[in-house]
This record gives sequence, structure tokens and C-alpha cells, in this order.
Amino acid sequence: MPIIVHKYGGTSVGNPEKIKNVARRVKKVMEAGNEVVVVVSAMGHTTDELIDLMHKVTSNPDPREYDMLVSTGEQVSAALLAMALQAMGCPAISLTGGQAGVVTEDIYRKARIKEIKLDRIKKELKDGKAVVITGFQGIDSKGDIITIGRGGSDTSAVALAAALKADVCDIYTDVDGVYTTDPRIVPEARKLKYISYEEMLELASLGAQVLHPRSVECASIYNMVIHLRSSSKEDEGTYIMSAARIAKEAGKMEKQEAVRGIALDENIAKIGILHVPDRPGTAARLFGALAKEKVNVDMIVQSIHSQGTLADMAFTVERADLKRAVEVTERIAGELKAEKVVSDSDVSKVSLVGVGMVSQPGTASKMFETLAFEKINIQMITTSEIKISCVVKAEQGKQAVRALHKAFGLDKVA
Amino acid sequence: MPIIVHKYGGTSVGNPEKIKNVARRVKKVMEAGNEVVVVVSAMGHTTDELIDLMHKVTSNPDPREYDMLVSTGEQVSAALLAMALQAMGCPAISLTGGQAGVVTEDIYRKARIKEIKLDRIKKELKDGKAVVITGFQGIDSKGDIITIGRGGSDTSAVALAAALKADVCDIYTDVDGVYTTDPRIVPEARKLKYISYEEMLELASLGAQVLHPRSVECASIYNMVIHLRSSSKEDEGTYIMSAARIAKEAGKMEKQEAVRGIALDENIAKIGILHVPDRPGTAARLFGALAKEKVNVDMIVQSIHSQGTLADMAFTVERADLKRAVEVTERIAGELKAEKVVSDSDVSKVSLVGVGMVSQPGTASKMFETLAFEKINIQMITTSEIKISCVVKAEQGKQAVRALHKAFGLDKVA
Repeated sequence: MPIIVHKYGGTSVGNPEKIKNVARRVKKVMEAGNEVVVVVSAMGHTTDELIDLMHKVTSNPDPREYDMLVSTGEQVSAALLAMALQAMGCPAISLTGGQAGVVTEDIYRKARIKEIKLDRIKKELKDGKAVVITGFQGIDSKGDIITIGRGGSDTSAVALAAALKADVCDIYTDVDGVYTTDPRIVPEARKLKYISYEEMLELASLGAQVLHPRSVECASIYNMVIHLRSSSKEDEGTYIMSAARIAKEAGKMEKQEAVRGIALDENIAKIGILHVPDRPGTAARLFGALAKEKVNVDMIVQSIHSQGTLADMAFTVERADLKRAVEVTERIAGELKAEKVVSDSDVSKVSLVGVGMVSQPGTASKMFETLAFEKINIQMITTSEIKISCVVKAEQGKQAVRALHKAFGLDKVA
Repeated sequence: MPIIVHKYGGTSVGNPEKIKNVARRVKKVMEAGNEVVVVVSAMGHTTDELIDLMHKVTSNPDPREYDMLVSTGEQVSAALLAMALQAMGCPAISLTGGQAGVVTEDIYRKARIKEIKLDRIKKELKDGKAVVITGFQGIDSKGDIITIGRGGSDTSAVALAAALKADVCDIYTDVDGVYTTDPRIVPEARKLKYISYEEMLELASLGAQVLHPRSVECASIYNMVIHLRSSSKEDEGTYIMSAARIAKEAGKMEKQEAVRGIALDENIAKIGILHVPDRPGTAARLFGALAKEKVNVDMIVQSIHSQGTLADMAFTVERADLKRAVEVTERIAGELKAEKVVSDSDVSKVSLVGVGMVSQPGTASKMFETLAFEKINIQMITTSEIKISCVVKAEQGKQAVRALHKAFGLDKVA
């Protein structure tokens, strides 16, 4: 019997009515003759509410107790969904991560899944039940409850689908798929039928918050197809799969599109450290110090200054980290005898993503020309095999996305 | 090192500030050189809120899923209390019932505790930690989460205290002890320093809602002293222990009091089935049918009617069950060819409780005289070795309690 794995996010199980809607959907899939495993997130803002409560008790929570606390959110929604299914005459059972055999590393709050012992799940499936599993959590070797990082329910679902050898992992959410860019910025944005793991990973980490990056990574390792779709519509969404499989399934037409999506990240800030004496180890010292302070650095650009013995470096960080990052950078700048540190939070990052770009060398220059034509000044550039990112003035970010979306023909029906 | 077991109810951990207060209290006991195990209930009305949510999803919840759902409440408060302790520099760890080794029968919602495997608790105590355990729950042989009935956290605490061989189980609550009667009815009501298990059991099941009856039963089996006290004051509360131990500790004066407490249950209704042909099996048939419909019957009185071949029966039920009980009774009355069924929800039950009553034969007559003097008509009477209960008109219940409290000298300092 085919095994179907569904995952429903917090919005999709946000209240009793929505939970019943999910139950109706699951029941239908059961009645079509499938075995169904459902992974759920916590209802709505439950996790945030638990964390608020926690902050009223301590400013420095123990990671073990954090996991004990926040894991309750998924347990509530799993139990309620199982009850809703039963109320519709559909046999169901909820399982905690531990009961479902999800074994993680012994690391609180951000463990990775090590193994899934399928005995209990298989027994319940064999008994004809829909098996509802708490996302975002497992147990470690001591039997302690372990969470696997915010947004980890996507990863739970993909790992379970892989372990159960499902053909596809359906992830239901409040958007109906992956778009060429954010439809709120470009109304002509087009829903993609397919996107590769690599492209999705880039889009996800560039601010397209539809899917947790680790779930995509996990899917790519196990070659698990993710079907990202809407929990309120019946339509197909976007299939996330290997580039090879897309080529096979979608044929030539899709393959020829060099640029598959455009992402805009408006939550960045830029720091420059100017006229640094150009010696080995400079970058290591600066970025080592930033890492120690838990500042995530994204783009890094280093250029040789006109005076050959000096370098300029620039990098971007999340806006919330800017103050801390500037403090660290100024300290290190003093030690390195750099001339000065500048910072600017009035910037955005625009990125083109597509696995085909590597074989289409004109892409970068077309991007720069398009932005130039729009009189948008490019402040920083980084490129990888499947991505080109430009930092521009914040107020021009959306304009850049619109122009590029048109220039690369993403509004045309595939 | 002495082991101290504390239990805090839902009101005592009702918000972050109260949780910090509990943490301060626990820390003090730790610093005095004790090992401490703390059992907690869910915060405030959490359990009721979860049940409300459940009723929006199903009208007929699966007991297994019910346990999965409601057990989260205690997990939240346990994690928060452990965090609050740590924030005060007091090493602590929270454990679910399962992690703490609380093994129950394989019966959802109302299992009894079978065994407590102490390895994990002992390890954590040895590591110098305060061990915070979720009340009201354990796991069964399948590893499923099992709750042990509403109010079960008291029982969890007593069972843990017994297993850990603590001298006493401190149950902290929002009242400061057991009173001779409800102080809201009789302002002169006196806090008892000691009360026996038997008396406490009667008072608890007669409507004095300070302690869960099963916890008292469990304490009496293991001869565990319960110290019921206020979570907001430092004063001693009431010690619940065996009559023999009270006699030894408290001496003669306490022993002489025949009546130890007076309880008023205003949540009852009375049903009469009149002129039943007096044949063997009649009572079994009626009460069997009621039990099958899950109606809890409390007092039962059967009297021979003046016509020797007929009997009258009367019994009391909880008011919420009255409608259902009347339906069942009328059905059976028809089958038995009884003359008619009458019912009255405008009644209350007044009870005197005291282990000394058995040796003081004047108690019952003094009770009846006192009520007669107050012009309070007695509708039903039942007696046991340590209790006399009378059903009276609802509006006279409080008056009856006040008169009896005075007549038996319960307002006098012991």
C-alpha cells in the first residue's frame, strides 16, 4: 500500500476549525487506499507564547528545559488532529517524536536526526490508523526530549518520508508553492511547477521563507521529492526534486531557463572596514571574532585598494546583529590599524537563482545592465555557480526585483 | 541526606511570578541540606483550556489522545520551574512522568500507579539537582502517556514520597490546612493540626476539596505523612497521618474529640422510588443499571413500607447526573412495577466526621436534636463508623453546619 507523508505547518493547524479541515484532507487520502503519516507543527503562535512565558521566568534558559517546554506545542496539535480524525470515523493515533522512534543527537535545541526506528509507526499503520507525529522533536540516547531547531517540522517530515520510503513528502503551508519571486512585489510572479534542491536551498536562505533550508538539504541527501502546496486549496503546488529528475520530467523547456527565481532580502545591513593593511590572517581574525559573538556573516567582498598595501573589506549581516557586529569590527579594526569602519542598514540584497546560470555566461552582465538602465547603483556583488547577489539601496530593492523579473522573462508561462 | 517531597497545585504555579516564588521556597529547602523532589500541576486553568480546545474538535475524545493532550500542561510548568530554579543558581532538572520512571496500569485517563523506577530520579538527586516532576501522569508498558485522573498530582506526590522513603510529603495549595468546616460558612472554623487518613478521606469525598481522595488512600497504605499547607505562607498547615500516630503525637486531648470536622455537600440531588414490590434482586437491578450509565450513587436508604410487601428506596446522586439518573430509575421502576419515582435537587448533605464517634454513642442523637432545635427537617440519614450524614433542604444546609459546629464545640481551641 502506498505510504503518503503530509506535513502541516502552524498556520494550517492554527485553530480547531483548521484542524478539522486538515483531518478531512487526511481522511480523503486514507479512503483512497493509502497509508498516511502526518507531521504537525505547533498551533499558530504557541511556540512563541511558550518562549514569552519562559523569558518571564529566566533570561538564560537551560537548553534541556527549553526543549522540554516548547515540545509541548506539537504534542497538543498532534493529539487534537488525531481526535479530529477519529471524530470523522477515521482511525488515528498521535505519537510524540520519542514514541515515533525519532532518535536525535544528544544536543538540545538544534540536534540533527540520527535515526528513525520505524517499529511503532509501522505497527500503527498496519492497524489501519493514520499516524500523527509531532514535528520538530525526537529523543536522545538518555530519553530526553530534543528539538531540532525552529522550523524543524519540515525536516521531521522529510526524514520520516525518507525512512518510510514514501514517493513524495507533501508539505502543506499557507502559500501554494514556490514563485519566481515574491508575488507581493511582482504581481506577474509565476508559480514554479518544479525547482531543484540547490535552487530551493538558495531561495530559502535568501529570504523566501516557504521551507526550512535543512529540510531541503535532507531531501536532497535522500533524493526525496517535496511537494510544497497550499493547505486550503486542492491544486498542485511546486515539486522540489533533483535537477536530473526535473530534466527528465519537465523536458527541455524548463531546462533552458537560466534564471529560475529572484529573491529579495530586506533584512540586511552592510559593514565596511577600510584601508586595512593587507596581511595574511586579517580576514580570519575579523570573521573569527564575529563568529565568536554569534554574528552570522552573509556576503563577504574583499578588494585590493588602489594603494597596493591596503585592502577594503565589506560584508553583510542581519540587521538585528548590526550593532554587535559594528562593535566587534571596530575593536578588530583598531588592532589591525585599519583606517575606519563604516556601516549602512539602508540596503537590500537582490539575488538571481538558477542552476542553468553556470552554462549561460551572459546572465551576470544582463543583470548589471538591467539595474544600470533602472539607475540602480550596485554596492556589492557576489556570485556562485547558481546565484548572483547584488546589494542595492533599500528603497530600490523592489524596483530591482520587478525589472529583473521582466528582463529574464520570468513572467512568461513556462 | 533527607529527601523532601513538595507538591504545588495549579494555583501555586499559576503565573511566572508564582513559579519564581515556588523556586525560592524550593531553593531554601535545598540550601538547608536536603534532597528535593518537586511535583507540579499544570499552571492555573491550563488543563481546562486544553479540554475546551478538545471539545471544539470532538465530542467523544479517545482516552489515549486525551492523555496525550492534557499531559502537556504539567510538562510546561515543570520545565518553567526547573528554569526558574536554575536562574536562581539552584541546579535543577524537569522530568516527565515517563522519564521519572512512573509506571502506570495500561488504562488511559484514570490509571493507578503500579511502580516507580527510581534510577533516573536518584541519579539526578545525586548530581545535586532539584528534581521537578510532572504530576498527574506516567507511562504504561507500551510507552504511552497515561494520566491518573483529575487532581492526580496529589497522588503522584504521595507515591513518589513513599517510593523515595521521605518522612513527609508537603502538599502546598491555596488553603492553609484542613478546617473543622468551611470557614466561609463558619468564621469560627478552626484549622486542625492533625487529622487521620480515614477522617480526611471522608471529608474529601464529602466536598472538602482540599486534597484528592486517592492521594489520602495512597498515603494511608504507605503510612506516609501528608503535610497540607499554604504556598504563600510559612506557617505549618495540617498533618494527615494514621490515627495511631496522631494519638502518640497529639496526646489525649485531641483523641477525646469525637467529631473532628463537618462537611457540607451542596452538589447533590435526591431520587426516591416508591412502593417497589419487595423481592430479592431489586436493588441490584436498579443500581446495576445506574452504574452502567456511569451515574455515581452516594447515599442509599431502603426502608420497609407499612405495607409489608412493598419497599421505598431513596438515594442521592451528583446534581449533574440527576436527569440521566431519573431516566434510568423510571425505566427500571416500570420493569419492577414500582408505584412512582420522585426527585428533588433542592437538597444538601451535612456530615459529621470523626474516628472517635464510634466510641461515643451520643453523637448521632445530639446531631438530630441540634437540627430539630433549629427546625431543620432531616430527609435521609446514613451512618458509618466515622461519619453521620443527613440530607436536609438546600436552603438550610449552611444553618445546619453552623449549629452543629457550635454544638460539638469545634470552635473551641484544641
